Amino acid sequence: MIVVMNPGVEEKDIQMVVEKLKDMGFGVHLSRGVYRTIIGAIGDREKALSSGLEALPSVEKIVPISKPFKLVSREFKAEDSVYRIGGVQVGGEELAMMAGPCAVESLEQLLEAARQVKACGAKFLRGGAFKPRTSPYSFQGLEEEGLKMLAAAREDTGLLIVTEVMNQHTVEMVADYADILQVGARSMQNFYLLREIGRLDKPVLLKRGISATIEEWLMSAEYIMSEGNYQVILCERGIRTFETYTRNTLDLSCVPIIKRLSHLPVLVDPSHGTGNWHWVPAMSRAALAAGADGLLVEVHPNPAEALCDGPQSLNPENFGSLMASLKELAPVLGRRL
Amino acid sequence: MIVVMNPGVEEKDIQMVVEKLKDMGFGVHLSRGVYRTIIGAIGDREKALSSGLEALPSVEKIVPISKPFKLVSREFKAEDSVYRIGGVQVGGEELAMMAGPCAVESLEQLLEAARQVKACGAKFLRGGAFKPRTSPYSFQGLEEEGLKMLAAAREDTGLLIVTEVMNQHTVEMVADYADILQVGARSMQNFYLLREIGRLDKPVLLKRGISATIEEWLMSAEYIMSEGNYQVILCERGIRTFETYTRNTLDLSCVPIIKRLSHLPVLVDPSHGTGNWHWVPAMSRAALAAGADGLLVEVHPNPAEALCDGPQSLNPENFGSLMASLKELAPVLGRRL
Amino acid sequence: MIVVMNPGVEEKDIQMVVEKLKDMGFGVHLSRGVYRTIIGAIGDREKALSSGLEALPSVEKIVPISKPFKLVSREFKAEDSVYRIGGVQVGGEELAMMAGPCAVESLEQLLEAARQVKACGAKFLRGGAFKPRTSPYSFQGLEEEGLKMLAAAREDTGLLIVTEVMNQHTVEMVADYADILQVGARSMQNFYLLREIGRLDKPVLLKRGISATIEEWLMSAEYIMSEGNYQVILCERGIRTFETYTRNTLDLSCVPIIKRLSHLPVLVDPSHGTGNWHWVPAMSRAALAAGADGLLVEVHPNPAEALCDGPQSLNPENFGSLMASLKELAPVLGRRL
Amino acid sequence: MIVVMNPGVEEKDIQMVVEKLKDMGFGVHLSRGVYRTIIGAIGDREKALSSGLEALPSVEKIVPISKPFKLVSREFKAEDSVYRIGGVQVGGEELAMMAGPCAVESLEQLLEAARQVKACGAKFLRGGAFKPRTSPYSFQGLEEEGLKMLAAAREDTGLLIVTEVMNQHTVEMVADYADILQVGARSMQNFYLLREIGRLDKPVLLKRGISATIEEWLMSAEYIMSEGNYQVILCERGIRTFETYTRNTLDLSCVPIIKRLSHLPVLVDPSHGTGNWHWVPAMSRAALAAGADGLLVEVHPNPAEALCDGPQSLNPENFGSLMASLKELAPVLGRRL
Repeated sequence: MIVVMNPGVEEKDIQMVVEKLKDMGFGVHLSRGVYRTIIGAIGDREKALSSGLEALPSVEKIVPISKPFKLVSREFKAEDSVYRIGGVQVGGEELAMMAGPCAVESLEQLLEAARQVKACGAKFLRGGAFKPRTSPYSFQGLEEEGLKMLAAAREDTGLLIVTEVMNQHTVEMVADYADILQVGARSMQNFYLLREIGRLDKPVLLKRGISATIEEWLMSAEYIMSEGNYQVILCERGIRTFETYTRNTLDLSCVPIIKRLSHLPVLVDPSHGTGNWHWVPAMSRAALAAGADGLLVEVHPNPAEALCDGPQSLNPENFGSLMASLKELAPVLGRRL
Repeated sequence: MIVVMNPGVEEKDIQMVVEKLKDMGFGVHLSRGVYRTIIGAIGDREKALSSGLEALPSVEKIVPISKPFKLVSREFKAEDSVYRIGGVQVGGEELAMMAGPCAVESLEQLLEAARQVKACGAKFLRGGAFKPRTSPYSFQGLEEEGLKMLAAAREDTGLLIVTEVMNQHTVEMVADYADILQVGARSMQNFYLLREIGRLDKPVLLKRGISATIEEWLMSAEYIMSEGNYQVILCERGIRTFETYTRNTLDLSCVPIIKRLSHLPVLVDPSHGTGNWHWVPAMSRAALAAGADGLLVEVHPNPAEALCDGPQSLNPENFGSLMASLKELAPVLGRRL
Repeated sequence: MIVVMNPGVEEKDIQMVVEKLKDMGFGVHLSRGVYRTIIGAIGDREKALSSGLEALPSVEKIVPISKPFKLVSREFKAEDSVYRIGGVQVGGEELAMMAGPCAVESLEQLLEAARQVKACGAKFLRGGAFKPRTSPYSFQGLEEEGLKMLAAAREDTGLLIVTEVMNQHTVEMVADYADILQVGARSMQNFYLLREIGRLDKPVLLKRGISATIEEWLMSAEYIMSEGNYQVILCERGIRTFETYTRNTLDLSCVPIIKRLSHLPVLVDPSHGTGNWHWVPAMSRAALAAGADGLLVEVHPNPAEALCDGPQSLNPENFGSLMASLKELAPVLGRRL
Repeated sequence: MIVVMNPGVEEKDIQMVVEKLKDMGFGVHLSRGVYRTIIGAIGDREKALSSGLEALPSVEKIVPISKPFKLVSREFKAEDSVYRIGGVQVGGEELAMMAGPCAVESLEQLLEAARQVKACGAKFLRGGAFKPRTSPYSFQGLEEEGLKMLAAAREDTGLLIVTEVMNQHTVEMVADYADILQVGARSMQNFYLLREIGRLDKPVLLKRGISATIEEWLMSAEYIMSEGNYQVILCERGIRTFETYTRNTLDLSCVPIIKRLSHLPVLVDPSHGTGNWHWVPAMSRAALAAGADGLLVEVHPNPAEALCDGPQSLNPENFGSLMASLKELAPVLGRRL
């Protein structure tokens, strides 16, 4: 890290910082300019940031240089992480397609959706049994009943199940039914939940928080991995900006950035990312062209009857057309679908 | 709510929406313009939003008119909510001053801080025993040991204790020690935690999420109140914007807005809100002038030695000067300190 | 528009608003709910918004329903706008590729860049002679000398010239040299400049402002078109958000949205949009997959020697590889390159 | 500045950067860590940023250390800038109150407004003759007719005139009538306009752009001052964020920050900053408590009849009450009104 001293500080202030850094085990390099002195400190980033140096009146600011993540980084693992989940590849050449309704509403609705998305070529069924809702008066999900329906749909179709887990209490329960545990955007910094999931041997789909930086998001993956669970799949789902035409702003630039910083696979959810099914096909193609390893798409047998997020759900016919166009696109991108 | 139909829709599409709304129990008013028809629907907001109408191809959008919150609203309770906590008023004419270190580090540090903030006139001691940290490798708090130190500091000084609870498992434990339970910004939409706290008889300080709208924040208060706990105190602590000179952008406009929408008291945390102790005194005065019912301020005996957030902590001397200036300011604002 | 009355207003307040709306020529529909009355007003949007009604104490808010743009809208012109500029199509099946250095630095640099981008298949040469710079002490461009060099490069290569015009004074001068006038992000709401350009018979590339909503951007196009110049090309170049890994956040969702709202062609500038050449190839592919009609890409013979924006410029070799990959991609998207 | 090299670069890459920096006249300090080498370069910031180094494959990033502004900085001028404008002080102990309608609509309206704001104690009359409007179909101002009315109002009341100038062509015309030239948020980076104004001997009120960082805003002041006009007054008027309850988010933290970075006076415009007159009194008090040197407030004789921005205008009665409360507040803040 770099310690930038305030202009006009005295020699004794500089020496105090240098001594303090040396005491903490840092290698220290001093650069004196005409107006300003800066001190380079080589050592552990966490120790540096919690050093309290920035609170000294003689210090203007501290600029961290090294990246905070370890296990998620390309430095830790150079080649792409590829997982085999129930016989299906996530993260390699093959594109992972996860589709289904926002919420599990009934066995009938779910089976219909599952058969439809399977017929279109998806390998994973998504659907929420626990729903984080802004209002306590909104539908909150069928809970364990919903999980059982998901298991029944897997039984029926062979699709693998992706479903959200919202709190520590239910991690084991959800893990009993799911093939991939989804951590939602609102839970991305629920650190207790992350640690709990980190102790399982079960793949995790970690959605980006609505206002999380790429760095914070990777640090949340680091929480999971630091407990031993290395099967983390990232999922971009839009960030909050001033634009109101879309529910969120889908930040596709994060895809090539993550590919450079990290070995983890990254999916994109264009349904939450835009909030309107009209924009889903175009943004699905864009996500894959940006390098995403797959998609998470909301599909509902009858969006106008959906209990949640109907406006952003594709109907089966539109999902079918989308899959057809993605199948043409994949080979040009060096991928398989 | 208002249903805005797409331009050029057919009469049968309009009738379909009208019928659907009537079936759901809404009162319906039709306005036909030259280019566009809009349908006013009078009835329950939640039902309206989960109606799925927005997914119909004939519908352009749905505009909700009524506000989503009930128990937190001025319509529900016209007069300001005032609580007596351990003999100290929060929410009335008296300004509530809560101060102390970001994290409990040791009994010695905490007692020193407690005595200092008490000497300056604060009535509440803040300090975290559970710390939500972006990195799994950062100091995560002393947990129950820290809670015991807080209780000891209360014993020693008579200050009331405000401390954060981060997950359902530890709600009861924290409630055993704390006078006010703090819900941090990252937990503002941890709905299970909110419900759990809603079942207690203990005041709650609910911080605004870093990217939460005022409406989402009030809905999180509604979660707590809908379970029966009506003692909610709101706390603005800065939102995430593009500006990087401050850690967050302190949104003081939310204070008069909440005063109009809701009966709940609202405090301001200028320390997290700005991220730098230099701006804390000015923003403390501004917060009270905007109508805040009190402040949550970080004070550390020796900020340069703090294990977390040193740069935003006032030292005791600066906190003393701040309190002196606030004591002069309070009467002009019709408040007491 | 919808006028939402405050809860508990009196009948005479409602009648006052109704009368006022009728006097202004609006058709009026009244919807009385148990808690709240809303008034639908059918008529001219501009008149409605400048009616001052929102300032009445009895009125809570006004919700506009109709869109503010006319000439840019699909309602005004259903089919896509396609321009022929110097024999090259912009906006149709053919993808428009515009490439070149951020700033014109010297005739030698420009000719080298022009020949390189031409060899890779671009039809348009971009390069700034007038540079808007945050600091008065930065390089501000070669001005008319730069324009002459651009003309020389056109002479040499046959490429068409896209270059920025920054103020009214120089509109005619720049128009004498350029084939397409570029309006930069910082000038998107320089309404005098827009009107001046609107009086020319010359295509315009209108970049989105760094914090402009899609609606504001289209309204700026409306300014140009309302003066008679219908040859407007939109260009997304990233919006300002909290994320700092990229210089801006490239908002590709705007592409399908604009395609639905408007008949105007829309390009994407992945170089400014990300601020780093590493992300340019992936985001170029993503932009085309999202439906963009072309790209504006920074290419510099030697990025490390560039006088401005070197870090976001591709070198010729990388631009060549990008063009090769786009040529494979185009047919799958139903486009030509 | 600091040049951060990529991990694993070779010695020759490091030497190349070092040589290049030395050639450009920088003092160079090398810090070699186990994983990463960083190079401190002491010298001119502008030269550093335009060095193109960041485009080298061996360089990860460049971190500027020194601040980019010169004439606006406290280092350049330690004491607060105070101007005497027509006998009235701006920037010292006395608070500058500027009030009036958004737009000049008619002589009658303006005279009425002028007399009212004068009676309440304001010393400056604000009112726009040139109005930047998002839509080309909105009222654009009375132009020179409006300026003449402003002059007549000055004649009548003795108030000093603050009015916006929108383009180079009209700078002289507006300067003939105005006592203070206002540069609006949308023009903050219209660099030609800034330079033109910089050549006058006339005070300037420079509003912050809707998405301008504090640094960019100060650089725009630097543009004006670098041409010789040192009488710049800054004015915060809200930034664009995700929050929609307010039109903009008033960033009051910028006040103490600017007071530390710069010697220039800073006002606050709570009317545009919030977009709703309800929040104006609270935010006016908060602005002064944060240390602002005055306010720019919209006051209209009859807000419900205003041709623009009625909802954010105070009526004269409310403005009178606000002024009374500010008169009580001022002495506690060490100011005079």
